[in-house]
Amino acid sequence: MTPGANDKKPKLTLVGAGPGDPELITVKGIKVLQHADVVLYDALVSEEILKLIPAHVPAWSVGKRAGAHSFHQDDINSLIVEFAFRYGHVVRLKGGDPFIFGRGHEEIEYASAHGIATYVVPGISSALAVPANVNIPLTRRGVSESFWVVTGTTQSGAVSGDMALAAQSTATIVVLMGMSHLEEIMKTFQMHGKSETPVAVIQCGTLPEQRVVIATVSSIAHEVSKSGIGSPAVIVVGEAVRGASVSVLKDTLGDQGISFAANV
Amino acid sequence: MTPGANDKKPKLTLVGAGPGDPELITVKGIKVLQHADVVLYDALVSEEILKLIPAHVPAWSVGKRAGAHSFHQDDINSLIVEFAFRYGHVVRLKGGDPFIFGRGHEEIEYASAHGIATYVVPGISSALAVPANVNIPLTRRGVSESFWVVTGTTQSGAVSGDMALAAQSTATIVVLMGMSHLEEIMKTFQMHGKSETPVAVIQCGTLPEQRVVIATVSSIAHEVSKSGIGSPAVIVVGEAVRGASVSVLKDTLGDQGISFAANV
Repeated sequence: MTPGANDKKPKLTLVGAGPGDPELITVKGIKVLQHADVVLYDALVSEEILKLIPAHVPAWSVGKRAGAHSFHQDDINSLIVEFAFRYGHVVRLKGGDPFIFGRGHEEIEYASAHGIATYVVPGISSALAVPANVNIPLTRRGVSESFWVVTGTTQSGAVSGDMALAAQSTATIVVLMGMSHLEEIMKTFQMHGKSETPVAVIQCGTLPEQRVVIATVSSIAHEVSKSGIGSPAVIVVGEAVRGASVSVLKDTLGDQGISFAANV
Repeated sequence: MTPGANDKKPKLTLVGAGPGDPELITVKGIKVLQHADVVLYDALVSEEILKLIPAHVPAWSVGKRAGAHSFHQDDINSLIVEFAFRYGHVVRLKGGDPFIFGRGHEEIEYASAHGIATYVVPGISSALAVPANVNIPLTRRGVSESFWVVTGTTQSGAVSGDMALAAQSTATIVVLMGMSHLEEIMKTFQMHGKSETPVAVIQCGTLPEQRVVIATVSSIAHEVSKSGIGSPAVIVVGEAVRGASVSVLKDTLGDQGISFAANV
């Protein structure tokens, strides 16, 4: 097709690829991939999902964690617009859910401002699925009637000011991108009397290489450093963690690399 | 198969059917359905998804909203155990995600205590997907760095005590099962200086009959009663609602029944 000479309507669809396990993509996500004219995908999307893109469709990695050349958000926004007018239907394949800490809405807004029709296909967010996969329910009648998903690293690089409110609530708290501030975050919970509240840290959740450490607010940083677990990981704080670890965690996970600290 | 005489290992898998749109089930969810020996499904699961159950597999509705006979959670727990030992693999098909306000973890715990192996396949939660479908990002750099999902009706029937903390935070607040307490919830936000914060109420999100009303904390109850929108609906409170409604909501939704209040 000659660049700029196609008669397809420019269109952008954000598709959530899910939390890691390739089978956690939705049927709609696959359908949209199969109707793409070009695909831009993130570093966290699995090989098995990339194989679902038809062979004749150009697919570009714009993963910000890629080695040699790293794309900035502005570059990605520009590419989306350029490709929509050149190819027609741009599918933007993102890890997890496109609207949860993925800057997906900025891409929608930029494309829309350039006259491109935009659509979103949600994905399974790691914030919910990673705890579920180690049998931690984010809500549990009589224990936690809400859950709060917070980024550990805000735009400014600091811990979110909401963390102090989170520490006072009865919500199950899920922290994404928080491993580099783990001690500071746990200190906030300690200041609000939650030293003995259970905490789970889950690395590579839903993947075969998944690793889990469960301890308390006061001991988790030490247990994590002993275990060698690092980013990317999901941190879960709350009483709902305790119920899960006591009841059925072992049944569900078998020998998938769980380590329990002694004091939970 | 003679009841009680099969040699299959008793097993329970919870599967999330997603928020309404049948294409938002995961590939893994479909695979598990196709390997079920018996299925117990909720009232909110769509006909199209039920058609994915193989014809020879018995499938029972245990929807708590069903008319004639309504199942209690205890009945469902007992049925799961009875069927696991009679048939083998019980698939429990639930709306949304099985661990988000679905009492799924109680089913896991009960089955596990009876020696049944348990698994969870996450689903797309309406808490995330329903706002996304009307182009409301729950997180947005520089606007909202977290989101908090709260039930509007706790076990005791009252509004959650966390709602006052929620009203003080910068999180995007998502309230499920909150329509019967809408005025009371909005008063809590008004008490914390959020009268002009935008609010979206979305009924039948992701389905063709979806309806949306967007207004402010101080005006939403009136606008909702004018529109006739009712339960089940998702309530979203926060600045992220404003961004969405101004930028691309109309492009994405076409004429899917959106009504804007004048003052947003």
